Amino acid sequence: MALAAALRVPARILLGAGARLPGAALGLTKRAAGGGDGARRFGSQRVLVEPDAGAGVAVMRLNNPPVNTLSLEFLTELVISLEKLENDKSFRGVILTSDRPGVFSSGLDLTEMCGRSPAHYAEYWKAVQELWLRFYQCSLVLVAAINGACPAGGCLMALTSDHRVLADNPKYSIGLNETLLGIVAPFWFKDTLVNTIGHRAAERALQLGLLFPPAQALQVGIVDQVVPEEQVQSVALSAIAQWMAIPDHARQLTKAMMRKATASRLITHREDDVQNFVSFISRDSIQKSLQLYLERLKQKKG
Amino acid sequence: MALAAALRVPARILLGAGARLPGAALGLTKRAAGGGDGARRFGSQRVLVEPDAGAGVAVMRLNNPPVNTLSLEFLTELVISLEKLENDKSFRGVILTSDRPGVFSSGLDLTEMCGRSPAHYAEYWKAVQELWLRFYQCSLVLVAAINGACPAGGCLMALTSDHRVLADNPKYSIGLNETLLGIVAPFWFKDTLVNTIGHRAAERALQLGLLFPPAQALQVGIVDQVVPEEQVQSVALSAIAQWMAIPDHARQLTKAMMRKATASRLITHREDDVQNFVSFISRDSIQKSLQLYLERLKQKKG
Amino acid sequence: MALAAALRVPARILLGAGARLPGAALGLTKRAAGGGDGARRFGSQRVLVEPDAGAGVAVMRLNNPPVNTLSLEFLTELVISLEKLENDKSFRGVILTSDRPGVFSSGLDLTEMCGRSPAHYAEYWKAVQELWLRFYQCSLVLVAAINGACPAGGCLMALTSDHRVLADNPKYSIGLNETLLGIVAPFWFKDTLVNTIGHRAAERALQLGLLFPPAQALQVGIVDQVVPEEQVQSVALSAIAQWMAIPDHARQLTKAMMRKATASRLITHREDDVQNFVSFISRDSIQKSLQLYLERLKQKKG
Repeated sequence: MALAAALRVPARILLGAGARLPGAALGLTKRAAGGGDGARRFGSQRVLVEPDAGAGVAVMRLNNPPVNTLSLEFLTELVISLEKLENDKSFRGVILTSDRPGVFSSGLDLTEMCGRSPAHYAEYWKAVQELWLRFYQCSLVLVAAINGACPAGGCLMALTSDHRVLADNPKYSIGLNETLLGIVAPFWFKDTLVNTIGHRAAERALQLGLLFPPAQALQVGIVDQVVPEEQVQSVALSAIAQWMAIPDHARQLTKAMMRKATASRLITHREDDVQNFVSFISRDSIQKSLQLYLERLKQKKG
Repeated sequence: MALAAALRVPARILLGAGARLPGAALGLTKRAAGGGDGARRFGSQRVLVEPDAGAGVAVMRLNNPPVNTLSLEFLTELVISLEKLENDKSFRGVILTSDRPGVFSSGLDLTEMCGRSPAHYAEYWKAVQELWLRFYQCSLVLVAAINGACPAGGCLMALTSDHRVLADNPKYSIGLNETLLGIVAPFWFKDTLVNTIGHRAAERALQLGLLFPPAQALQVGIVDQVVPEEQVQSVALSAIAQWMAIPDHARQLTKAMMRKATASRLITHREDDVQNFVSFISRDSIQKSLQLYLERLKQKKG
Repeated sequence: MALAAALRVPARILLGAGARLPGAALGLTKRAAGGGDGARRFGSQRVLVEPDAGAGVAVMRLNNPPVNTLSLEFLTELVISLEKLENDKSFRGVILTSDRPGVFSSGLDLTEMCGRSPAHYAEYWKAVQELWLRFYQCSLVLVAAINGACPAGGCLMALTSDHRVLADNPKYSIGLNETLLGIVAPFWFKDTLVNTIGHRAAERALQLGLLFPPAQALQVGIVDQVVPEEQVQSVALSAIAQWMAIPDHARQLTKAMMRKATASRLITHREDDVQNFVSFISRDSIQKSLQLYLERLKQKKG
């Protein structure tokens, strides 16, 4: 199987094996430090949370250098941070954005899927499922302020939100491009995309591994707004205000009604889905492809 | 729960508790009286039917002053009028329109949901279900000539038709805005909307309680045509002629095939849906909110 | 039942009973003969296959004069030709196009449905099902280069492909227009259309029997591209190259995931669907209509 046959965004961003590469040391940014106690209470080193309890909104900044790859630890911290906010009655909305320049999230972490044990693969996949289930069914209003490239698992995370604002930068494309790497999005990625852009557009986008640049992303409906890069945060704040004007209880029940069938489908088949992933990723051919790809990636950076 | 947090159309129209308020005396209009025996045979005081058996079309004019609120009696008369037309072989199509200025229908009747017995709530909800089941599965061609505001239950009724023509007046918006009042559209309202505008647009519209003004309504697909106000009836007649050019039997079987799964879902869960409604509406918090709202409405009019 | 009440394309093309009428003698065209041994190996007299094993693409030209009506024999040859290509590892993509001027395919063959035995109706319907099942679930990339009118069963065949390019000629309309003839598209025609253009557009198109001219076809999404007539083949080749840039295995698994539920629905109800068709088509009223229609068609040509 040919991996990365026709990548259209830099491989570093597309595959994001970066979290374990040199130069990926963690560090709070100045802005994050400004979040003070709140940031520590709700977030982590990789998930910077800036609470604004007055407005009832928290900004959750993804900060897993270099490219917000969804490692096992990062997935876990994301879920915990969101749960903390859900359990704190002073918050009604969350803005999800990146603290890393140029990338929202590079998606799943290939180093978690390569050269590990079946038990590790299973643990990792359960964490991916958990992220989706928690974010897709989140009782808070969730707005994605997409300020960077948003492929694969990054796109999945964005698709769980209630409203998506994308910065108008031709480098920031969004989509489920798994087939470009010779892998296949699972059925619940597919269901989420179908719910968002419809069956035919999803059929085409998933098979071709399309990454939509801003104008196309807006047209196909994978994002709701495209705005100048410097306005992404302010527009996201305006959008969340519109959603928060609705009585919570009615909005939450309506959201649950819209999304329950899709979430239930994974919940029902969760264990099968883990087994499918483990047996697929454990294949010799897939492992060889991933190893080759990761080695090439290291050489480029070396 | 905050009721009517952000109403964008006059409350009188939005909630339409008017049928029992002063000034709501019934009376046939001149035009309706012109329908003669036919109007009496197929319609009622609140549902004026102008049969044109030559063309095979009947115009059904909603006339429940002041704002065509869907009271229990009005719902029942609507269903009976439609049934009479369905059982008369001289009719193949119905145009549904309003005889009340400025409003198509204000939707469900809050006075039927407030300060009554659980048995009354159950009876009322069954009548709402019955309206939807009969209209959504109507064997006749059903065209809505929407000549006024069309929120909530009014929108549901319009969504049951085969073709929707909306008058181009910025005051005439259409949508399922239940969340604005702190209440939740049931799953079959949601299913009808998803069938019409797709999953993502419905998710957004239902949660935000969006009322679409004409241009937006056309763009999102909740109506099929927007035309100058004085042309609504003539355009509706042209549209129904196009639908009636199709052999009835083939069109009816095709319509049933498209709508059966959605209708069956309510039929299967009908009793549960009644129980859900009764227990939700009977809550103290909901009853208090409705009472407050209705009192404020009376004061405004006093 | 009134047949052909409002036909908008020439009846010869719409109903295509032509395969058994005078002038329908078979013959390989020059171009097809140019396919040489390959054409004979993969195709038949009615299905001309031009293999280009170098590029991994085969062009399958429909050649059942006069109007590519889907007779029992033609259906069988189409399925066999596609199977041969699927089983030959040198092919990864197929372009489906017409060798008959002005028509892609006129659809199902009414002479197979009229004046025959119930056993024949059943055999014919199974062949129609088989065509759809094989083409809709084809592991190869399938691109339709629609170079002529594409009603009813012709449209169904086009809808099974991964990408549709339509020649920009106002005579070349596409749609499932069964209701115009007083007949009803079965549920799996409907499912395929809903998957392609969504529920509401399908509800309208199926009931009205709409045949979309090029610009409308593109707008509603029943085709993906509309191009000048002389460019249909070259654009189809460009499109198939884009699809073939994706690793086969990932693309095939993704395609199967998108289409499995729809295909399974017919597989599960296949026998019922045959019985439904046989009992519907055997009705006296339907047989009389079909006979009248076919006689009128013969007189026109006589």
